[in-house]
Amino acid sequence: MRVFVTGAAGFIGSHLVDRLLAEGETVVGWDNFSTGQPEFLAGASAHPAFTLIRGDTLDLPALTAAMAGCDFVFHLAASADVRSGLEFPRRDLEQNTVATHHVLAAMRAAGIGRIAFSSTGSVYGEPAVIPTPEDAPMPVQTSLYGASKVACEGMISAWCEGFGGEAWIFRFVSILGERYTHGHVYDFVRQLRAHPDRLHVLGDGTQRKSYLYVGDCVAAMLRAVRSGSAATAPHRTAIYNLGTGAWCDVSDSARWIAAALGLSPQIDYAGGKRGWAGDSPVVHLATDRIRATGWSPTLTIEQSVVRTVHWLRDHPWVFERRA
Amino acid sequence: MRVFVTGAAGFIGSHLVDRLLAEGETVVGWDNFSTGQPEFLAGASAHPAFTLIRGDTLDLPALTAAMAGCDFVFHLAASADVRSGLEFPRRDLEQNTVATHHVLAAMRAAGIGRIAFSSTGSVYGEPAVIPTPEDAPMPVQTSLYGASKVACEGMISAWCEGFGGEAWIFRFVSILGERYTHGHVYDFVRQLRAHPDRLHVLGDGTQRKSYLYVGDCVAAMLRAVRSGSAATAPHRTAIYNLGTGAWCDVSDSARWIAAALGLSPQIDYAGGKRGWAGDSPVVHLATDRIRATGWSPTLTIEQSVVRTVHWLRDHPWVFERRA
Repeated sequence: MRVFVTGAAGFIGSHLVDRLLAEGETVVGWDNFSTGQPEFLAGASAHPAFTLIRGDTLDLPALTAAMAGCDFVFHLAASADVRSGLEFPRRDLEQNTVATHHVLAAMRAAGIGRIAFSSTGSVYGEPAVIPTPEDAPMPVQTSLYGASKVACEGMISAWCEGFGGEAWIFRFVSILGERYTHGHVYDFVRQLRAHPDRLHVLGDGTQRKSYLYVGDCVAAMLRAVRSGSAATAPHRTAIYNLGTGAWCDVSDSARWIAAALGLSPQIDYAGGKRGWAGDSPVVHLATDRIRATGWSPTLTIEQSVVRTVHWLRDHPWVFERRA
Repeated sequence: MRVFVTGAAGFIGSHLVDRLLAEGETVVGWDNFSTGQPEFLAGASAHPAFTLIRGDTLDLPALTAAMAGCDFVFHLAASADVRSGLEFPRRDLEQNTVATHHVLAAMRAAGIGRIAFSSTGSVYGEPAVIPTPEDAPMPVQTSLYGASKVACEGMISAWCEGFGGEAWIFRFVSILGERYTHGHVYDFVRQLRAHPDRLHVLGDGTQRKSYLYVGDCVAAMLRAVRSGSAATAPHRTAIYNLGTGAWCDVSDSARWIAAALGLSPQIDYAGGKRGWAGDSPVVHLATDRIRATGWSPTLTIEQSVVRTVHWLRDHPWVFERRA
C-alpha cells in the first residue's frame, strides 16, 4: 500500500510514518514544517520506501500532484493548539476546516477513496455523559479548535456518502510521548527548567483529563483501519474514541512531572474550573469501540507522562527552538 | 433596536425584515442578490427605517463597515440548496462556513454581541431518535450542506464562549410560503406547469418530511430572541428546532400540490428510500423547546403547502427568472 501522510513531520505523524515503514508500507510524507520538525523524520528519511514532499495543504494543486498514485490518506496536518484559538480566530478555520476540504478535493482528483482523520475529544464540548461514547450528544462547541474538527468530521463523512469513499475518524484525548512539543507537560517542564521551586497551574487542579501514549495511538489507528471496512450500513464513516479509558487530575499530573524531574516545587493554582476559555473540565472518553478491535494500550497515563518528561529532559532543543 | 439582517432579500430574510419593520425596529438589510430578489424587498424599501446594502459576506471589510451601529445580527445569508452540494463541493464551505466566520469577525470588530442563526434539521443527518430533540446525538453528516451548518453552529457557539457573545441557533425544517423559490414544491409546480398530466417524484414517496410556514418561522425566531437571554449556564448559546412538530409523506405532499392546482397527474416514483445522496428519509423534529416559549404555528403543513402552491401559481416570474 502507498500511504499519504499529511503532517508527516509532526508529533503523531512522524510516529505513524516510522511505524508504516517498519511494517513494509510505502509512505509519502507531506508537511509545511510550520510546527513539524525535520529531526522527527531523521530515521524515515534514510528509508528507501519514504518520500518527503514539503508543501502546504492550502496549496491545492501541489497537494493534488503529491497524492498521485497513493491508495490511502492519513490526514494529521492541523493546527493543534486548542488554547490559543481566540488569539488567532481565523487559524483553525483555515488550517483545519479549509485544509481538510483541500485534502478531500485532492483525494477526489487523485482517485483516492480512503481517509483516516485525527479528530479530538474536544468535539464533545462539555458532554453530559462521562465517560463519553462516540454517539453521545454534543451540547455546544466551546473552542474554535473543537468547532473546526467537527467541521472537518462533517465534511469527511458527507464527502464519503456523496462520492463513495470510506473514512476512519479518530477522536483523540491528549497524546503524550517522544517528540511531544506542546501541551501541559511541555508547559510544566518548561516552567520547572526556568524555576525548579515553583509551578503555576491553570485552573484549580481538579480538571480531569485523559492522555494516551503516542505509540498506542498509532497502533490503535492502524488496528482500526486494518480491521475491515469503515462502512457500516447506512453510513461510510467509522468513528473511534482513542484513549486509555482512564483519567487523571491535573494535580496528579503535576506531581508526576515534578517527581520525574526529581523536584518538589510549590504548586500554585490559578483557580477556576477551567484552565482557559473553552477548556473542558472533564475529558474522559469511553473506549469500548476501539478495544473491540482487539487493541489495548501498553502504557498507563502515569507511564506516558513520565516517559514524556524524560524525553523533554533529554531533548532540550525543543524548548530552545520554540523560545 | 437596530437589526442587521444578512440574506435580507431572500425568502426567509425578506419576511423577517418586513416583520421587524412592522414592529418598529430599524433594519439594515445585507444581500449580494445571488439568490435574493429585489421584488421581495419592495415593501421594505419604501419604509424609512430600512436601509439596504448590497454586498457579499465574503467581503469582510464591507461587511464590517455595514454593521456599524447595529445591536443584533440575524445571519440568514447562505447557500440553501442542499441537493446540489456534490456538484459544487466548495460552495457550502465558502458561502456558509467561511461566510459565517466573516459575520462573527465583523460583529466583533463592530462590537455586536448577539446573533441569531438559521441552521437546519439536516445537522442531525439520519438521527436514531424520532422525533428528534435538540440534544439528540448526530451520527454522521450526510450532506455537505448539513456539514457546513454544523461547522457554523460550532464556530458561533465557540465564539460566544470565548468572546462573551450570545447566540440563538434555529434548526429549521423546510420552510414554505410566499416568496418560496426552491425545493420540492417549486419543483413539483414547475413540472406540472410543463406537463400537467404527470409528476416525477424522487425516492419512493414514503420519505417523511416536515415543513413550516415562513410567517410562523419568523414569529418563532423573534419569540425566542425576545424571551430572554440565550445564555444558560454553563453556555451562551440556545438551540431551537423550528417546525410544526408534524410530518407528511412526500406522496401526501404531491397529492396536495396537484389538488391545489386542480390537476390529477400520474405520479411516477424514482424509487429508493432517499431522494438524493445525503437526503434524510425521515425529518421530524421535536419542537417542545420552542413551544415552551409560548409560540405555536398558525398553519398546518397541508395549509402551508397549499398557500405556497397558490403563491407560485400567481407569481410565474419566479420560474421564468430561474429558467
